[in-house]
Amino acid sequence: MKRRALVKEKRGPGAVLKELDIPTLGPKDILVQVKAAAICGTDIHIYEWDDWAAARVKPPMVFGHEFCGEVVRVGQDVKTVKPGDLVAGETHIPCGECYQCRTGDQHICQDMAILGVHTDGAFTDYLAIPEICTWRLCRDTDPEIGALYEPFGVAVHGVLRHNLAGSSVVIFGCGPIGLFAISIAKTAGATQIFAVDLVEFRLDMAKKMGATVILNAAKDDVTTVIQECTGGVGADYVIELSGSPPAIKQGFNVLRNGGAVSLVGLPSEEVSLDLTKDIIYKEAKVFGSTGRHMFDTWYKTSALLETGMIDISQVITHRFKLSEYEEAFRVLVSEGREVGKVLLLP
Amino acid sequence: MKRRALVKEKRGPGAVLKELDIPTLGPKDILVQVKAAAICGTDIHIYEWDDWAAARVKPPMVFGHEFCGEVVRVGQDVKTVKPGDLVAGETHIPCGECYQCRTGDQHICQDMAILGVHTDGAFTDYLAIPEICTWRLCRDTDPEIGALYEPFGVAVHGVLRHNLAGSSVVIFGCGPIGLFAISIAKTAGATQIFAVDLVEFRLDMAKKMGATVILNAAKDDVTTVIQECTGGVGADYVIELSGSPPAIKQGFNVLRNGGAVSLVGLPSEEVSLDLTKDIIYKEAKVFGSTGRHMFDTWYKTSALLETGMIDISQVITHRFKLSEYEEAFRVLVSEGREVGKVLLLP
Amino acid sequence: MKRRALVKEKRGPGAVLKELDIPTLGPKDILVQVKAAAICGTDIHIYEWDDWAAARVKPPMVFGHEFCGEVVRVGQDVKTVKPGDLVAGETHIPCGECYQCRTGDQHICQDMAILGVHTDGAFTDYLAIPEICTWRLCRDTDPEIGALYEPFGVAVHGVLRHNLAGSSVVIFGCGPIGLFAISIAKTAGATQIFAVDLVEFRLDMAKKMGATVILNAAKDDVTTVIQECTGGVGADYVIELSGSPPAIKQGFNVLRNGGAVSLVGLPSEEVSLDLTKDIIYKEAKVFGSTGRHMFDTWYKTSALLETGMIDISQVITHRFKLSEYEEAFRVLVSEGREVGKVLLLP
Amino acid sequence: MKRRALVKEKRGPGAVLKELDIPTLGPKDILVQVKAAAICGTDIHIYEWDDWAAARVKPPMVFGHEFCGEVVRVGQDVKTVKPGDLVAGETHIPCGECYQCRTGDQHICQDMAILGVHTDGAFTDYLAIPEICTWRLCRDTDPEIGALYEPFGVAVHGVLRHNLAGSSVVIFGCGPIGLFAISIAKTAGATQIFAVDLVEFRLDMAKKMGATVILNAAKDDVTTVIQECTGGVGADYVIELSGSPPAIKQGFNVLRNGGAVSLVGLPSEEVSLDLTKDIIYKEAKVFGSTGRHMFDTWYKTSALLETGMIDISQVITHRFKLSEYEEAFRVLVSEGREVGKVLLLP
Repeated sequence: MKRRALVKEKRGPGAVLKELDIPTLGPKDILVQVKAAAICGTDIHIYEWDDWAAARVKPPMVFGHEFCGEVVRVGQDVKTVKPGDLVAGETHIPCGECYQCRTGDQHICQDMAILGVHTDGAFTDYLAIPEICTWRLCRDTDPEIGALYEPFGVAVHGVLRHNLAGSSVVIFGCGPIGLFAISIAKTAGATQIFAVDLVEFRLDMAKKMGATVILNAAKDDVTTVIQECTGGVGADYVIELSGSPPAIKQGFNVLRNGGAVSLVGLPSEEVSLDLTKDIIYKEAKVFGSTGRHMFDTWYKTSALLETGMIDISQVITHRFKLSEYEEAFRVLVSEGREVGKVLLLP
Repeated sequence: MKRRALVKEKRGPGAVLKELDIPTLGPKDILVQVKAAAICGTDIHIYEWDDWAAARVKPPMVFGHEFCGEVVRVGQDVKTVKPGDLVAGETHIPCGECYQCRTGDQHICQDMAILGVHTDGAFTDYLAIPEICTWRLCRDTDPEIGALYEPFGVAVHGVLRHNLAGSSVVIFGCGPIGLFAISIAKTAGATQIFAVDLVEFRLDMAKKMGATVILNAAKDDVTTVIQECTGGVGADYVIELSGSPPAIKQGFNVLRNGGAVSLVGLPSEEVSLDLTKDIIYKEAKVFGSTGRHMFDTWYKTSALLETGMIDISQVITHRFKLSEYEEAFRVLVSEGREVGKVLLLP
Repeated sequence: MKRRALVKEKRGPGAVLKELDIPTLGPKDILVQVKAAAICGTDIHIYEWDDWAAARVKPPMVFGHEFCGEVVRVGQDVKTVKPGDLVAGETHIPCGECYQCRTGDQHICQDMAILGVHTDGAFTDYLAIPEICTWRLCRDTDPEIGALYEPFGVAVHGVLRHNLAGSSVVIFGCGPIGLFAISIAKTAGATQIFAVDLVEFRLDMAKKMGATVILNAAKDDVTTVIQECTGGVGADYVIELSGSPPAIKQGFNVLRNGGAVSLVGLPSEEVSLDLTKDIIYKEAKVFGSTGRHMFDTWYKTSALLETGMIDISQVITHRFKLSEYEEAFRVLVSEGREVGKVLLLP
Repeated sequence: MKRRALVKEKRGPGAVLKELDIPTLGPKDILVQVKAAAICGTDIHIYEWDDWAAARVKPPMVFGHEFCGEVVRVGQDVKTVKPGDLVAGETHIPCGECYQCRTGDQHICQDMAILGVHTDGAFTDYLAIPEICTWRLCRDTDPEIGALYEPFGVAVHGVLRHNLAGSSVVIFGCGPIGLFAISIAKTAGATQIFAVDLVEFRLDMAKKMGATVILNAAKDDVTTVIQECTGGVGADYVIELSGSPPAIKQGFNVLRNGGAVSLVGLPSEEVSLDLTKDIIYKEAKVFGSTGRHMFDTWYKTSALLETGMIDISQVITHRFKLSEYEEAFRVLVSEGREVGKVLLLP
């Protein structure tokens, strides 16, 4: 039996859709029939083959890591899922043996592999993954939403380490994870949610997801507005999802003395900070935040999405068949600032 | 100039409405014209003169401590409010010098006085209080809501020490503070909110305030329902507001391993607990919670109520003039289980 | 090949030393040659066959769970240890699949088995255990000390959840785990360490392990002394290791407002508490604490013992050969209050 | 009656010793006869008149802020100290009204004044200060040690926000506060204490104060040594006291995944950081730390120094009379890297 898969065949831009063998399963592996996959920024790096990708990815390999599918076969030692289960994919593949893995922080394993970056990924119709990469969904979950559990979890992990109820928060960057973060902050009872971006399309989405004030950093005086709206105190929390150095600096600027910051967005260059003013005198608390805490984040993600407390369907703006992948990537690359989440449906 | 005030004249039941002098102000004192006051369980203890009251209150004195009013005069050293300001009352009067006062925990001062219990209270039209007992409200706050900031703050303090977003919580006791707690848990993103009481009237209110499951402990199998609804895991959090020993024991019973409890309701007798099973093997975390943290709780209370994120007006079921105080207390004592919050309006 | 093992053969007091087959290993199992084992209170319950044991233990089985030994053979899937390694034994055998296991709290697994209680134990010369029950020791660790890592870890887990440096702590119960707790509090910088017990022998040991004040609850006015020594404030922390209801009540009594308690010792009956005074008005924080956090506790245990910062050798007061088990248990049962830790050496 | 005081008379280098009137006291003020003062880096900035000083200090004024003295007179509203008391000086003068002051964080007040920078300071024989700037010492405290409570408290605040027992910590910068930090880490049970500096004199002191490994960043391969000594994991904690950009970068480099950093030393320029690698992927927790938490830090400082658990006397390397101030500053400026703490004794 065969499967179709989107393969990065060689070092360089592009990818090809190929027919491959269905992988054989080890005793702790699971074969999943993919129902929906979503394209992440990482996938664009791989598709376009930038420095980030060139330093990590070893072609030929199938990429893609945000997905939802049905379990079709399981290895003999698999215990937590069975054929017929609907699952979302956790993309961290921790070593299980290092200090972090042994102390409850597998997601920052010292020897981590990433599904679809270091191992065969999800832009395919059949995918084999280790058991630890699956999260069982409620049977009636829409697979399109199931494919977004993974990036939604990134937002859950970055936002809910803070207790936002009754507080003010500024969210920098209104791409899909930023929009998720806004919806989470809203649901968690933040009383003021400032959303900052450079693109009106995204800021309109931010408003729909629950931002109380939207700020276009290209036009608005972000610092002044936030200072005024917080009575001159500054914001209690900042969630940084843009990875943009000026946004990061502005984030520290609008934070109140004693406030806390989650850094989630990945800057592609060094960022120069005035530590004395922005962190030390202010006693800022800064938390790096990556991926999802295994598996607290998943329990909370399921609770928030299954109960319908948060509706993220509107963040999906485009759907393509797997075979239309070239158009999907074209849209993301050329119109990226005007799109939300783009799905690839096998 | 004179004022009217409800005075506990002597040791024993009842109270009388009298005309008294307006108090003179010290340099850090504030004279407030009361716009609305609310009756607390403590006031019923004092009115009925039970053991609790007999051990604490020294007649003659004016009682009452939940209020909202307008500042009419301030002492020369007062800095944070001015005549014309609308204020709610903080009822803790901390000593300012003990370990707790000097380390940010004035609300658990070792030598605390309580407004309306140890000092002259708020069932009057003019009240003199130390500056530290005032919290400035937004000018357009409804004074009836302003009078509820103090008990609402008790719920804020007990509930928001936990980060409820995406979690399950059980609230025992659906009197006014329990109803506030439900609304706060809802706003803070709890995905399952179980409300437990013995009175249908209160459970109906609980439903309106946001409970997802209401349980009448006299009829329903509380433990079984909560275990089922949480997939056999138990609840993440318990907020105990009933002060009832069987409820407290049941609270530990429905808590998941590793879960956390806020004890807020005051039992009037000792409670016998199976510490081995309920706390130690389970690694429960138990937090005593009293009053309001000064002044974090007030900032959060204001944020939640001023933004309209929580509407507590429906908890007010009765309004009386100060002169109708006998009827007000009669309603509370005889029909107490079928009333929400009762106001006394000067 | 055969092994000798101390077997609880049938429901009732006593045990017999028998020759048994060396167990066969599953793919994740490890065969350990025991170098030293220690007798825990649990073993006395099993030996004497009290209600606790009768409710849990299913004879015939080998008991004992505090041990140190050398790995002699490993199953094919074992990764973290190899033959020749010296290991101590973790006695929690978590299910790996429940909420707690999946969120970093395996030690409070909902479906936990305990080595030597639910599965074959360590009073033997050869023991087969799952890989998760091993902790690799530094090669030059004294096996007698290695056998105490498990109970020492109980103290580490209960004490180090608090940050004791510069603070006062009261430790109730000066059995072996209490003595370990004292040494840990000392090393962690507690500036006042009150040790409370009823037995002079233990209080003398407490003094040697670092207590700054020893109090015999049968003679001394514990509350008054602690209040005086803390300037009337009360103690910052209480570590309860006695399981005795009067001690637990006294613990809450000497705690300062806002202080924190670890409950570790297991009461064998319900404890009646004045929650209003002792927990709620005081805003006590109470933490149930059981076993060891896997594996944070083990990393800290190793760091504290391997560096020599803490010397626990003096807590070992008796050593017996495995064949002398009757005398070992006799000493513990009849002279238990005058002994420290008792070892069984194969 | 007159006093002598070291006065920065005009904008520019130097200072003059003058005779001034004893200040009159407000109702909340205290007159202190200074017994010992210590010179801080801030004082060197003021004496030498660099950009930092030019931006903050308004001559003429008396500078100096680390001191110990005896209360000689108190204003009528002073409650916590009385004539004859020995006191150390807290140098934060918070506004008392801002968000931070009202929520237990006066030390990061939005409108803070600093004693000896914004108000008259301690290089004098008689000093008037607000009550909030005093901390009562044990009567038999050596005034030379009392003068170091303030900078020692900076180390307490930066170090003890972490629970170091059983953990590894790297301390960058071995000036006086770095040396204090080492002694605190030692006392708090850190099992590995790496001290990093560029000056052998300071590293020798670091060894004496309790560092387990000293590293000269000019010669030693700091990262490699720390990685090796921590089994390739990295350090649990970093305390940054140098303010040096390369040290800060190295600090993040040697931190383990999930580790925590206190930033205390003040960089005089922006620092360029690889946030992706050093904070986000690593999930570092970074805490700005300034001054002392009022008054938790003081309680802990007193407990650690009064009990004799930490001896900081050896950090004092030079003592001068107030009249010898020119020599004192000369030593600090020209031989600063070979001195510990320098005292000015009136």
